[in-house]
Amino acid sequence: MARANRVGNPREDYGARMTQLVRVHNFGVSSDGYAAGDGQSLERPFGHADPMALMSWAGATASWPNRTDPGGSRGLEDYLVRDFHRNVGAEVMGRNKFGPQRGPWTDHDWQGWWGDEPPFHTPVLVMTHHPRPSFTLGDTTFHFVGGEPAEVLERALEAAGGRDVRLGGGAESIRQFLDAGLVDTLHVAVAPVELGAGSRWWSSPDDLLDRYHRDVVPGSGGVVHHLFWRD
Amino acid sequence: MARANRVGNPREDYGARMTQLVRVHNFGVSSDGYAAGDGQSLERPFGHADPMALMSWAGATASWPNRTDPGGSRGLEDYLVRDFHRNVGAEVMGRNKFGPQRGPWTDHDWQGWWGDEPPFHTPVLVMTHHPRPSFTLGDTTFHFVGGEPAEVLERALEAAGGRDVRLGGGAESIRQFLDAGLVDTLHVAVAPVELGAGSRWWSSPDDLLDRYHRDVVPGSGGVVHHLFWRD
Repeated sequence: MARANRVGNPREDYGARMTQLVRVHNFGVSSDGYAAGDGQSLERPFGHADPMALMSWAGATASWPNRTDPGGSRGLEDYLVRDFHRNVGAEVMGRNKFGPQRGPWTDHDWQGWWGDEPPFHTPVLVMTHHPRPSFTLGDTTFHFVGGEPAEVLERALEAAGGRDVRLGGGAESIRQFLDAGLVDTLHVAVAPVELGAGSRWWSSPDDLLDRYHRDVVPGSGGVVHHLFWRD
Repeated sequence: MARANRVGNPREDYGARMTQLVRVHNFGVSSDGYAAGDGQSLERPFGHADPMALMSWAGATASWPNRTDPGGSRGLEDYLVRDFHRNVGAEVMGRNKFGPQRGPWTDHDWQGWWGDEPPFHTPVLVMTHHPRPSFTLGDTTFHFVGGEPAEVLERALEAAGGRDVRLGGGAESIRQFLDAGLVDTLHVAVAPVELGAGSRWWSSPDDLLDRYHRDVVPGSGGVVHHLFWRD
């Protein structure tokens, strides 16, 4: 999905010359291949999984946005955390990342898990077959869009204004784009925890090697980072 | 040298909240610890060293700015290359990085190695005891400054407008800032080539462990990346 970048900015161009990429970043999965547990609810966005067990490597970095004390590492994993927002112009997420509701939208007071200042700072396209008006919180605007992955991506690329599109998850949503051949790069962090059940991401980190190059990089606390890209 | 960042930008803040850092990036050295060879000249900026042998890992990435064909890896080393410009507001370099001349500036036609569009896009402070007027090429302005490292850094931090300062080398220049305790993070890429002599950077990659944390990350073609940070 690499395409000509019509937005000129010498500093941004250093990292994204001529292409508009579709990227997956900081996507945490268990050692047995689940990105979330069973039983999502308002109280447990990740079901029976502990999101901190999946993402503790990120929380230990200096650039982790929820950090309240000054410390934190500025080694390899800080590069991975920093890159999350670099040159991203829009995010696409599945509706289960946006909230635990299913079916038609009956409660418009629910505006996601993130409070008054969501951490996206771009348009966010929430994939759902049920219509709902767009709304804005802080500098993030949420749109609710139906259609096939290729149609959703077309809208996201336009909303991104020449910058990249991040696929924010969950697993099922990203898999739809993968199966349609629409993903350029992925960063998947495999944590040393087993979930046994939940939202299936892959059967093995080798699943994508028929389509992608890969770097495997050891991280902190037993995490292993898998970086995928294609020609 | 971490200090309060007075420039507010939600997107930038993700990676640089509250601090203005002094950083070394993509600094290539030989396996025996030299950052350049002997005998610098107009024709050979790195003396008897081949800069491509030191930096081939960077040239193989998709984000390498001198790349003319579309390919290139988007794995680990692409993160390192992309990060070179992120949130940098000024560069400090030694005069030997700027040119092969020594002593007073007699030829003002010499404006560095980089042609009409230098790749810095920020103020650049060239350390020299010999005065010379500032000049601008493209969106890079070169200033020529004397004084101790702490004084030079004070000017660079001001010129950076709240963003970070990159120390661009060469080895002798960065060592002055290291010895004065002024460097926050370093990325040093150790290439599998021996130079035998030249501009000495360190006797061993372990030299800095009394003052810095370190991640050691294997790269492509036998390169080893050392990422240093301090509390």
